[in-house]
Amino acid sequence: MTHVFDEAIALTPTASDHVVRAQTHPAYNNMVGPFGGITAATVVNGIQQRPDVLGDPLALTINYAAPIAEGQWDLDLRPVRTNRTNQHWVVTISQSGQVAATGTAVFGVARDTWSDTEPTPPAAPPAEEVEVSEYVDFIAWAKNYDKRFVAGGMDGRNDADSTSTLWLRDRPERPLDFPALTAMTDVFYPRVFLRHGTYMPAGTITLTTYFHATAQELEAHGTGHVLATARAARFGHGHFDQYGQLWSGEVLLATTHQLVYFKDPA
Amino acid sequence: MTHVFDEAIALTPTASDHVVRAQTHPAYNNMVGPFGGITAATVVNGIQQRPDVLGDPLALTINYAAPIAEGQWDLDLRPVRTNRTNQHWVVTISQSGQVAATGTAVFGVARDTWSDTEPTPPAAPPAEEVEVSEYVDFIAWAKNYDKRFVAGGMDGRNDADSTSTLWLRDRPERPLDFPALTAMTDVFYPRVFLRHGTYMPAGTITLTTYFHATAQELEAHGTGHVLATARAARFGHGHFDQYGQLWSGEVLLATTHQLVYFKDPA
Repeated sequence: MTHVFDEAIALTPTASDHVVRAQTHPAYNNMVGPFGGITAATVVNGIQQRPDVLGDPLALTINYAAPIAEGQWDLDLRPVRTNRTNQHWVVTISQSGQVAATGTAVFGVARDTWSDTEPTPPAAPPAEEVEVSEYVDFIAWAKNYDKRFVAGGMDGRNDADSTSTLWLRDRPERPLDFPALTAMTDVFYPRVFLRHGTYMPAGTITLTTYFHATAQELEAHGTGHVLATARAARFGHGHFDQYGQLWSGEVLLATTHQLVYFKDPA
Repeated sequence: MTHVFDEAIALTPTASDHVVRAQTHPAYNNMVGPFGGITAATVVNGIQQRPDVLGDPLALTINYAAPIAEGQWDLDLRPVRTNRTNQHWVVTISQSGQVAATGTAVFGVARDTWSDTEPTPPAAPPAEEVEVSEYVDFIAWAKNYDKRFVAGGMDGRNDADSTSTLWLRDRPERPLDFPALTAMTDVFYPRVFLRHGTYMPAGTITLTTYFHATAQELEAHGTGHVLATARAARFGHGHFDQYGQLWSGEVLLATTHQLVYFKDPA
């Protein structure tokens, strides 16, 4: 049986070598358009399927220029420069002849070098001891994640600190891979909701994720929970940023940064 | 008299509406090719000069695909989607018909909203009380910055913490604007040098900066020192990330994230 995540990131060929076709999946809908994480994951999936791909994802930036409407969309993927150990991709998502998102990706070959991780994962009780929580019913995509908040849950409010930390995995369980990790870097609800304890119009404008994990580390992780944490630095003038980290035990899988649009509640 | 920074980011028209021409400036040379910060600043300058630009920089990603050789290079800037309050740009830097860098930018209009800044600037004595330090002589671009390290100076070594914090301004003094701020987000020397107390081959692969500052805040800052801080999270497999913040007093001007290539010293 195909996992719903794999259905949502599936691609079909087109007449063009560098364009593949995706299809929005109702299980990954957001309030307006699809969950940004599933769009980003589809891009990673598309590049990974290319016969000319070099190595694994190192960096991904996706700029959400307009909502994607329900239905088919085109993913244009061009490898504009291939070096000895890395490869640069330019990404364009279009629908009905209009650009809906732009992006770039860097893929590369893991080399053996000196290594160290400076931060430590946030303190958290084991996932089994933390209650599962749900986002509101109309956020379809969130139902595909088992989410266990250790700090900054969606039913809360914090007047000073926008940190959310949660145990996170696909529901049903699915082995962690690069597309799944990509989607998880966008799983945090907007930090401005936590500061106000209420909803307001908000959406990701641009997302950048750095993949520190190797394919071997993702395989070793398996289907267990990832520990994910994110916090904003500055809110103002209609935008805020968010910096996040995703951990597998002591292994820092990814760091992620995004800029989010928001409107004050009426 | 034109400031050397303005000479370095200067652009001339070409026969194409969406391509302008830049020229490397010896004062901003790095070890191989130009300082990545001056390339990024030139992109911001190019978009700001476009008659069809909407608002000010919100986000910029530049992927350094290959070194730019000394001489002229072409900057292709396309506004692929203009919304009510923001505008998405796709950036291509080429030289001799090859892609040397790719990128994307989001510009937008500042709106009045609720605001807050969660972190505080790093503790630092006043800039006047901190000694000016220089990078090594062959790093030409660094001579154009007054750099006063409060932590993690280039002559040091730290076995556990890659943080550098410094007071920073253009030399000679120059009023802070978006291109100058852009360049400053790449001013940190590679974090891996600090961890080892030595040089090794290293270079930025991709840089993403979010501009929290408004044009008014930059104008209010004037020519004084910015307080800049950066730290890596994970080193390994030939790469590390760096997260940084740039402050004007209590005002968080920008957050920045980059992925850097490195090789172990022989």
